[in-house]
Amino acid sequence: MFRTKIGEETELALMEHRHARELFELIEGNRAHLRAWMNWVDQRRTQADVANYVATSLKQYALNQGIHTGIWEKGKLCGMIIICPIEWPNKATHLEYWMGAEYEGRGIMRASCRAMVDYAFGTLDLHRLTIRCATENRRSRAIPEELGFTFEGISRDAEWVNDHFVDHAVYGLIKGDKTS
Amino acid sequence: MFRTKIGEETELALMEHRHARELFELIEGNRAHLRAWMNWVDQRRTQADVANYVATSLKQYALNQGIHTGIWEKGKLCGMIIICPIEWPNKATHLEYWMGAEYEGRGIMRASCRAMVDYAFGTLDLHRLTIRCATENRRSRAIPEELGFTFEGISRDAEWVNDHFVDHAVYGLIKGDKTS
Amino acid sequence: MFRTKIGEETELALMEHRHARELFELIEGNRAHLRAWMNWVDQRRTQADVANYVATSLKQYALNQGIHTGIWEKGKLCGMIIICPIEWPNKATHLEYWMGAEYEGRGIMRASCRAMVDYAFGTLDLHRLTIRCATENRRSRAIPEELGFTFEGISRDAEWVNDHFVDHAVYGLIKGDKTS
Amino acid sequence: MFRTKIGEETELALMEHRHARELFELIEGNRAHLRAWMNWVDQRRTQADVANYVATSLKQYALNQGIHTGIWEKGKLCGMIIICPIEWPNKATHLEYWMGAEYEGRGIMRASCRAMVDYAFGTLDLHRLTIRCATENRRSRAIPEELGFTFEGISRDAEWVNDHFVDHAVYGLIKGDKTS
Amino acid sequence: MFRTKIGEETELALMEHRHARELFELIEGNRAHLRAWMNWVDQRRTQADVANYVATSLKQYALNQGIHTGIWEKGKLCGMIIICPIEWPNKATHLEYWMGAEYEGRGIMRASCRAMVDYAFGTLDLHRLTIRCATENRRSRAIPEELGFTFEGISRDAEWVNDHFVDHAVYGLIKGDKTS
Amino acid sequence: MFRTKIGEETELALMEHRHARELFELIEGNRAHLRAWMNWVDQRRTQADVANYVATSLKQYALNQGIHTGIWEKGKLCGMIIICPIEWPNKATHLEYWMGAEYEGRGIMRASCRAMVDYAFGTLDLHRLTIRCATENRRSRAIPEELGFTFEGISRDAEWVNDHFVDHAVYGLIKGDKTS
Repeated sequence: MFRTKIGEETELALMEHRHARELFELIEGNRAHLRAWMNWVDQRRTQADVANYVATSLKQYALNQGIHTGIWEKGKLCGMIIICPIEWPNKATHLEYWMGAEYEGRGIMRASCRAMVDYAFGTLDLHRLTIRCATENRRSRAIPEELGFTFEGISRDAEWVNDHFVDHAVYGLIKGDKTS
Repeated sequence: MFRTKIGEETELALMEHRHARELFELIEGNRAHLRAWMNWVDQRRTQADVANYVATSLKQYALNQGIHTGIWEKGKLCGMIIICPIEWPNKATHLEYWMGAEYEGRGIMRASCRAMVDYAFGTLDLHRLTIRCATENRRSRAIPEELGFTFEGISRDAEWVNDHFVDHAVYGLIKGDKTS
Repeated sequence: MFRTKIGEETELALMEHRHARELFELIEGNRAHLRAWMNWVDQRRTQADVANYVATSLKQYALNQGIHTGIWEKGKLCGMIIICPIEWPNKATHLEYWMGAEYEGRGIMRASCRAMVDYAFGTLDLHRLTIRCATENRRSRAIPEELGFTFEGISRDAEWVNDHFVDHAVYGLIKGDKTS
Repeated sequence: MFRTKIGEETELALMEHRHARELFELIEGNRAHLRAWMNWVDQRRTQADVANYVATSLKQYALNQGIHTGIWEKGKLCGMIIICPIEWPNKATHLEYWMGAEYEGRGIMRASCRAMVDYAFGTLDLHRLTIRCATENRRSRAIPEELGFTFEGISRDAEWVNDHFVDHAVYGLIKGDKTS
Repeated sequence: MFRTKIGEETELALMEHRHARELFELIEGNRAHLRAWMNWVDQRRTQADVANYVATSLKQYALNQGIHTGIWEKGKLCGMIIICPIEWPNKATHLEYWMGAEYEGRGIMRASCRAMVDYAFGTLDLHRLTIRCATENRRSRAIPEELGFTFEGISRDAEWVNDHFVDHAVYGLIKGDKTS
Repeated sequence: MFRTKIGEETELALMEHRHARELFELIEGNRAHLRAWMNWVDQRRTQADVANYVATSLKQYALNQGIHTGIWEKGKLCGMIIICPIEWPNKATHLEYWMGAEYEGRGIMRASCRAMVDYAFGTLDLHRLTIRCATENRRSRAIPEELGFTFEGISRDAEWVNDHFVDHAVYGLIKGDKTS
């Protein structure tokens, strides 16, 4: 229940307390993989850290400030898409996403992000979406480029990832832009 | 997204901030009808009251204490099903429901409650559900009776509804009971 | 001060911070005895747990939601009576109680509960009291039966006690019922 | 219940939600009388103000920081005694008190304060009590002087009462001091 | 005290409760002027709104999340510079500023921002500053351009100002960049 | 920035998160020295304790209830001056101060307290300041005596310092008193 099908085998659903263990295991099994580009990996070391993250994300949802969504493939949690924070006065939000290594290369994330874009512009009636990727994270940048986002510039040294700064490539999509 | 289809035309979804106006209008259009059996009608007079109720119910959801669900029929909000509070140590919860007058008599609520029972015993892995109806509310009592709940007794004067006490008929369903 | 005498040697008083150690010792000395029927025993293992329970119960009192009362016999804490939660719109509450093994069989709890019933219907002007006991807890069921509560039904599998579900016998008393 | 008798006709009890109306009426009937020396009178103009004060004082009690006590004479609320804040590390607290005009001159407050002193040094095991009175408030100063407090000095301009500063006469009592 | 001189006649200081009236009057006297580019003007209509804004900004300061600073010219409040939010893990923050019309054109804001940049890179040891201006707000864009920020791109429709979206010109400054 | 010079080499500034380590080291290096008269020394044993103290003090500042100020001598933190709590209705506050042993005897504290007195009566527009010192702490009592405070009395056993009670000498200064 409260899941949305995308194609035959993919589903999106809110990340809830009862998924915390499954989420912990996905992170645990992909720690090195995720750590290359994600600065939060070292903050979610234990089951308690992850349970805490889920509680925080549900509070954001309850306050209408963000939606942390899991992606399930054939019933197995394989990644997340997050829109957060939602700036309601500007009808704008950021989109973030990550995935376990073993699920990459099948188009799951692209399809999931496309569904999330439709949800944001349709159901939520937002006006602008931003995606920020480390400039050298080619796999991540492929998502906004394939979905028709416009490249808007480079933020130098925008994020500290473990032990160095990375530049961000910034992409924007406005409601009404032609998407693919 | 995040809706669950029940049959062709009915959907359940979490009651969220963006539904508050639609919910207010449903209550507003059914005030006399609902007030006969519901003690909360006079506390949700204004749009602000209803927005506040939605915010409170989402906080319960975020804390894993309750799920307040809207029922949409052909895209129109027609009622609610609520499980709250959830007693996790006892794996037990209460089920409540109400519906606009114009949607009654079509089996929508029965189908929706059956879906919620499946969700509670399946996805949430709860063990016991309780339904409490005013003894003279025949339409409401039909739900647990048709769904195979066991009648467990009468709580005398259990609820104050506007200007008088009503007795409650108490029904229970245990996971593994034969339902219909 | 702030104690109420019941007969010559029994007193009721709010459970406060300064009683936390005495309460811990009573629980500690009766752990096996209480654990047979009480599901909270394993959650109050340490002095800190008990201090936390007292703090929580005083917050309920401050918010007008419950009253956690100790029973002192000849100056020694021997048990508790709790009314919680208080549903003010319905003028209803639940009554719970427990006692150390060495104090059983002298009528202390019956007298204390009778005083609490008088307090609830008199001072607090409530209308309905509910007592729920595990069906097989004969000693506990004797209290509502001796005080004139009406047996209202059985809630199957209503509570998880350590490692199994127990059925609840439900008793109700309405203001104006003949008590004994 | 939870009242303490002082002599035949006087009782002390915690100020609770259910007393808020009675408290409001006592203040309302003594507004000019109290306003001469009390700086809080203009902040408790409405029933909502007084209800709010009671809620705040009960939170202090729940946090072990203060005790706001009503004085009832023949069942009628006639004044209050407050110990607040309680400095547990120093085992010290302040004592404040006020009374409706029609109850003055009968020794009620002196007896009530003596009971509160016993409670503070006995039950609460505090070590030091301070009373601060406007220097010209002869009636108020009589209390610590009759109870055996030591005069410790004058705090110039210590309190703003409506439209002017007043000096405070400061009195202290140490556990073990000879009281009368 | 707690003010910092910039040149002879300009001072920066934290915006505190005691400045709320002065701030309200500055906004009140510049409502039309500020409203052209600022989306917060209509949310700070009353003295209470402004007092609330000051309270919120001080809470951010206490939590180490932002610094809301007033600019005083010859003792008169003339504008504000704000760094908020501070992303400590990324050592990055945004810089915002606004000024009353009568103080424009004298270089006050440029000097104040230069001081704030020094403070952010020096005292706070941050690494990156971002400034975002509506693309058509020439006066505002002059600040980062004169201070040596790098133009990093355009965020289309990034902000809703009263009745329309504006594009943002995004500027970044990295510690170690040559500033002017 | 946000520092105030007192003479050539002394500065006062709000104690902020970024000073927590420096503060911890000052306390750590003066533990025995401070413990003789300060009851808080044993509660600030670790860096986390001190960070927590700083966070609490900044919350007081944000709520307009107190100002915890560091004293820097030639750029090194050497002590603190605190005004807390501020009673706005009475325009009154307490002044507390302490200093590392190696900085004593140079007049730094006297000058700093004089600046704080000016700030309290001037910028904050307060009316009364109180200083309370252990009667036998000659060095501490010298401050109010040299600054022109009036000795107002002795509070017997007013404070518990580690293992014994100390009497307090109470000093007051009213705006308009002649200071030196």
